[in-house]
Amino acid sequence: MKELEKLLERIIQRININLRELEYDVSPFIKNLVPLHQMVKFYAFYGITPNHPLDLVFRHSSLAGSYFLGKIRTRNSILYKSDIRGDELKQKGDVFHYQKFEIPITRDEGIDIEDSFLIKTLVHNFSHDPETLEKFFIRDTVSTHYANIHGSPIDGCFLGPFATVDLTSMRDCVIGTFSYVQAGEVGHLNVGPGTIWVRNPDEFNFLYRHPLNKLNHYINFIAGRPPQGFLMDFVDDRKEGFQRVFNAVNLEQSFPVPSNASLDRYAVIKPKTHISENVLVAQRAYLQNAWLGKGANAQENCYIINSRLEGCNVTAHGAKIIEADLGKNIFVGFNSFLRGRADSRLTIGNESIIMPHTIIDIKKPLTIPPEHLVWGLITNSQELASNSMTLKDFSKINNGLIKGNMSFEGNGAGFVTAFRERIHHILEANGAFFDGKKNKGHAQKNQNISFNTIQPYPDGKLQGLYPAIVIQP
Amino acid sequence: MKELEKLLERIIQRININLRELEYDVSPFIKNLVPLHQMVKFYAFYGITPNHPLDLVFRHSSLAGSYFLGKIRTRNSILYKSDIRGDELKQKGDVFHYQKFEIPITRDEGIDIEDSFLIKTLVHNFSHDPETLEKFFIRDTVSTHYANIHGSPIDGCFLGPFATVDLTSMRDCVIGTFSYVQAGEVGHLNVGPGTIWVRNPDEFNFLYRHPLNKLNHYINFIAGRPPQGFLMDFVDDRKEGFQRVFNAVNLEQSFPVPSNASLDRYAVIKPKTHISENVLVAQRAYLQNAWLGKGANAQENCYIINSRLEGCNVTAHGAKIIEADLGKNIFVGFNSFLRGRADSRLTIGNESIIMPHTIIDIKKPLTIPPEHLVWGLITNSQELASNSMTLKDFSKINNGLIKGNMSFEGNGAGFVTAFRERIHHILEANGAFFDGKKNKGHAQKNQNISFNTIQPYPDGKLQGLYPAIVIQP
Repeated sequence: MKELEKLLERIIQRININLRELEYDVSPFIKNLVPLHQMVKFYAFYGITPNHPLDLVFRHSSLAGSYFLGKIRTRNSILYKSDIRGDELKQKGDVFHYQKFEIPITRDEGIDIEDSFLIKTLVHNFSHDPETLEKFFIRDTVSTHYANIHGSPIDGCFLGPFATVDLTSMRDCVIGTFSYVQAGEVGHLNVGPGTIWVRNPDEFNFLYRHPLNKLNHYINFIAGRPPQGFLMDFVDDRKEGFQRVFNAVNLEQSFPVPSNASLDRYAVIKPKTHISENVLVAQRAYLQNAWLGKGANAQENCYIINSRLEGCNVTAHGAKIIEADLGKNIFVGFNSFLRGRADSRLTIGNESIIMPHTIIDIKKPLTIPPEHLVWGLITNSQELASNSMTLKDFSKINNGLIKGNMSFEGNGAGFVTAFRERIHHILEANGAFFDGKKNKGHAQKNQNISFNTIQPYPDGKLQGLYPAIVIQP
Repeated sequence: MKELEKLLERIIQRININLRELEYDVSPFIKNLVPLHQMVKFYAFYGITPNHPLDLVFRHSSLAGSYFLGKIRTRNSILYKSDIRGDELKQKGDVFHYQKFEIPITRDEGIDIEDSFLIKTLVHNFSHDPETLEKFFIRDTVSTHYANIHGSPIDGCFLGPFATVDLTSMRDCVIGTFSYVQAGEVGHLNVGPGTIWVRNPDEFNFLYRHPLNKLNHYINFIAGRPPQGFLMDFVDDRKEGFQRVFNAVNLEQSFPVPSNASLDRYAVIKPKTHISENVLVAQRAYLQNAWLGKGANAQENCYIINSRLEGCNVTAHGAKIIEADLGKNIFVGFNSFLRGRADSRLTIGNESIIMPHTIIDIKKPLTIPPEHLVWGLITNSQELASNSMTLKDFSKINNGLIKGNMSFEGNGAGFVTAFRERIHHILEANGAFFDGKKNKGHAQKNQNISFNTIQPYPDGKLQGLYPAIVIQP
């Protein structure tokens, strides 16, 4: 265990050097956050398919529980139950369009993780930074429970629990608990907890802050102890379902799935779930009495319970949908928590967009009409009124708007268009539009994956560290 | 699957070139012997421990079911449920004594398998060839069901089912079904089925041939169909027990084992089994109502059923012991088949040596007294009389002896001493003599192994082949 302890010290020092201007010391948050002996308990695994470039290099790292797909390197890093999906990496020969530039991709893009500590973190890979198209790097970074690093090269950062960095290149930043940042390129910022920030420089700037007194009930993070709150309890209460899927080398798929849909063998499926055509269910998704219509997707770490989704729904990484009825083409963003009750269901109309990190937690029935944009923390219809707008009205914003805790600057139409295009891209990439010939996506390509497991040294000086591993075609 | 088919063609051609002088064509034996789609069904696995050098390189190979431990390379090879244990490889800095030579080992020895097809084959590694101390190679070789390659570098050979090549360097040979060869260095031989041949040049030469009409009942191999006979049926009937242990990623060890003994998690343990101190139970061993006394070992692919072994017993790779009572310090050689009946048990006295590939199959009770050497095929006490001698009498042989189907030339004392030293080495290496401090062996070192699984491409052109895999410390 000695080497692993030294490695953690080294990572803490490196990130503290990066964060020195913010005067931020990560060590009280990080030390003992994961007892290092946990790192011996879980195996990591990587997928092999003919559809994804295979190029894995792991050196001097601890990888407990991690999932790898595609071209990925780790060095001097500790990953713990991290999903790291490289199935949208750019490939040699692609051309990337950015503003007036047409940029040729000269070698296969890879994810490169160095000197970092990622805890229960999803890393997904469709990066947009035109400066670093061949390397999606994560360096000198600590991310905590259920944070998401999504298409975002990142250097010298600390991500609190349930934080998401999305389509952003980020240097030397602290991103607070349950904050969402999609901001192009940022550096040297300390973003407070519960901040939802979507910016396209020169176009628009969306900013919302969750009321901290209420957010703390769902999630809070204090130095010296693990993250706490209802979201942690919710996830912990459902751990057991995953034990079965992780304890078996190969699971017989007893659950009926159409041939053009894909159900990952590391997902949990409880009774009365229905999976329609072109559906993608990713690893660590949790479905219980969930009806998924054609082209819906259930991404990593999402939970869909006692709910019906009519089709072409995006349930993003970490989103939770409970006792709800969703129409078609509804987007539910990262880490959103939507909870109806058995006797007070949540209903969402077609084409609505639930912003990332939205919390809807109701005790009386609530209906969100079609084509609405919804954000923030909502527990009743009054709060819905102050935390939503029709997409049509939002598109009319020209010179900014302040509404409750939300402020918006710039062009509303640009914001709505960007969101809609993104949702279309997600559905397309996930295979929602596959017609039997064209528009194959993850739902069709991720069907037949072999998973190989890897484990660390079980004892001795290197206990908890994995040997050097190189996997190539 | 295309690449895998090409690979098999390539291997067949290479071995046929090697065997051209013997005018031996392996293809009718090999084609369709394992349907290639089987190669996608099983995972291979490798062990990680701090006690064994870790250096694995697999390239352009199919590895279904194989077990790897230590420093092993494969290239252009097809392995199928092969156990390949590199836990006795010589290490850099060792000195190897051979006759008057003291040979320094200049780099860690490794097993190197190239252009070969090994089916359900155990490869074990304590090689004795002074010419190739750093590389234990297996090249241009086909070995079939339950053959053993034991400390034997081998080039251009074909091994029939249940054949064993032990402590022999072998080039361009055919070893027949159920034949055992321990002969130093041989080349360009076609050894017929059922031959037991132990030779130490200039010292002794032991030769026995099983009566083929009787051997065929136990095992026979005809071109164009899989091996047949009672031994195949016996193994097939017990396949199911292994399914459970291979289907789980990690098994809780519910079976009590002393802290100085080792029970591999890929062994099958059925009720009423007892494991004493310093016992080693290797992967794919099968124990059912088996009582193992202190320092006994149960090696790969052995079966011990309804039997009691008093202690310091060697049950070598592939040996089967059913309804028998064995005293102390008894050696049961490779692939031996010892079957008593519930009402007619087999009893073996202390210190006896059951030669490799011995078949004892009785319908009336039979007792082998202490300190006997036993060989060949025995179904009753008359056959025991003609297929055994006291070790004392055997040691007295000076100028050869013919007894039944057995002929012996040279020095009987040398033969018995060599056997006894070998048995002592095996017990020592396996940890039978561990006293809490000194004499650690496999039973103590192989206790805490992490196993990592690897799988092939699930479909496409490379279906059944594994990606290139490099694992280093």
